[in-house]
Amino acid sequence: MAQVATVRRSRITPERAAELYAAVLDLLREVGYDALTMDAVAARTRSSKATLYRQWGGKPELVVRALRHGKPGSVADIDTGSLRGDLHALATREDDCAMEQNSALMRGLSMAVHMNPDLRRAFKELLIEPEMAEFQRVLRRAIERGEIREDAPALEYVVHMLVGAFVTRALIDDLPPTQTFLLSYIDAVVLPALGAPTS
Amino acid sequence: MAQVATVRRSRITPERAAELYAAVLDLLREVGYDALTMDAVAARTRSSKATLYRQWGGKPELVVRALRHGKPGSVADIDTGSLRGDLHALATREDDCAMEQNSALMRGLSMAVHMNPDLRRAFKELLIEPEMAEFQRVLRRAIERGEIREDAPALEYVVHMLVGAFVTRALIDDLPPTQTFLLSYIDAVVLPALGAPTS
Repeated sequence: MAQVATVRRSRITPERAAELYAAVLDLLREVGYDALTMDAVAARTRSSKATLYRQWGGKPELVVRALRHGKPGSVADIDTGSLRGDLHALATREDDCAMEQNSALMRGLSMAVHMNPDLRRAFKELLIEPEMAEFQRVLRRAIERGEIREDAPALEYVVHMLVGAFVTRALIDDLPPTQTFLLSYIDAVVLPALGAPTS
Repeated sequence: MAQVATVRRSRITPERAAELYAAVLDLLREVGYDALTMDAVAARTRSSKATLYRQWGGKPELVVRALRHGKPGSVADIDTGSLRGDLHALATREDDCAMEQNSALMRGLSMAVHMNPDLRRAFKELLIEPEMAEFQRVLRRAIERGEIREDAPALEYVVHMLVGAFVTRALIDDLPPTQTFLLSYIDAVVLPALGAPTS
């Protein structure tokens, strides 16, 4: 299995990288992960495959960096002074339209993530673990403010609750996840499970 | 869109139906929903396509009936006297091995459910809605016993919590859902969110 590479010293501008990432997301939507080739990315963006490989190391990393680039502001920037405020800010980073696109993209990728260990590792190292680490800081501050107990059993499942809400909205209700739904879920489930103030 | 048919007066024995369902689940694992054909089911089970269509109406219904047949005992049979007991009984209906197979099968089907309105409707009418109705009775009894308040906001999200736990275990932790995990999740998240006794 190829090693997940760290980002190389950039030889391309941020604007050019943004163009490349947008093209990768378009291709993902059009053909899916398995059929997406570095040749197609090179052709669509008029770049050389050598540049793509030098910059990103390979397809799994390029795809995950593109997904991460598409995400709005970092969790680390959120600090409203209450856990409820922080979680609500988190749930409203993306508008409903962006959230639905993101949901469709992740649904399309879920099988590929399961089948490809390299993609799974890139996901974990470049997307899930960094977000989790930042998210831990949000929870840590809530503990320090006395909003939740350090030994609340639900603490280890906060990400499962939030991601679970996002995923099951489509699965169970056949509806796209919306800000309204997520805010309601946070107040009805996440905060009470943690024993945190719900208003 | 074809209408989801009710089961026709059976011309085949329950044993024969069980054989057919097992063959359908095998084919689903081997080729996935899109590539599964009624011809292949007929060939593998040495039955006529006419029989399959007469009995089940079509591929979406046959597939969902096969999935439902593979599920262990009904939620309706569970009544332990406490909500915690009922939810624990629900989470241990399947052993870890069956749960992992089921998880893999559902992962393979998630894209097909999204792409095929007929399959989505069969899922909803034949699998999700009947289970939800039975599940509501479990919750209703807990309200009548005074374990949860009738107006607990988490009540409308109990299924999201449980299915979300099941789905995110693979997605976030890269681990199969196990009975141990689900029991821990019920005690840490579901019961506290509902304000129900956790022991």
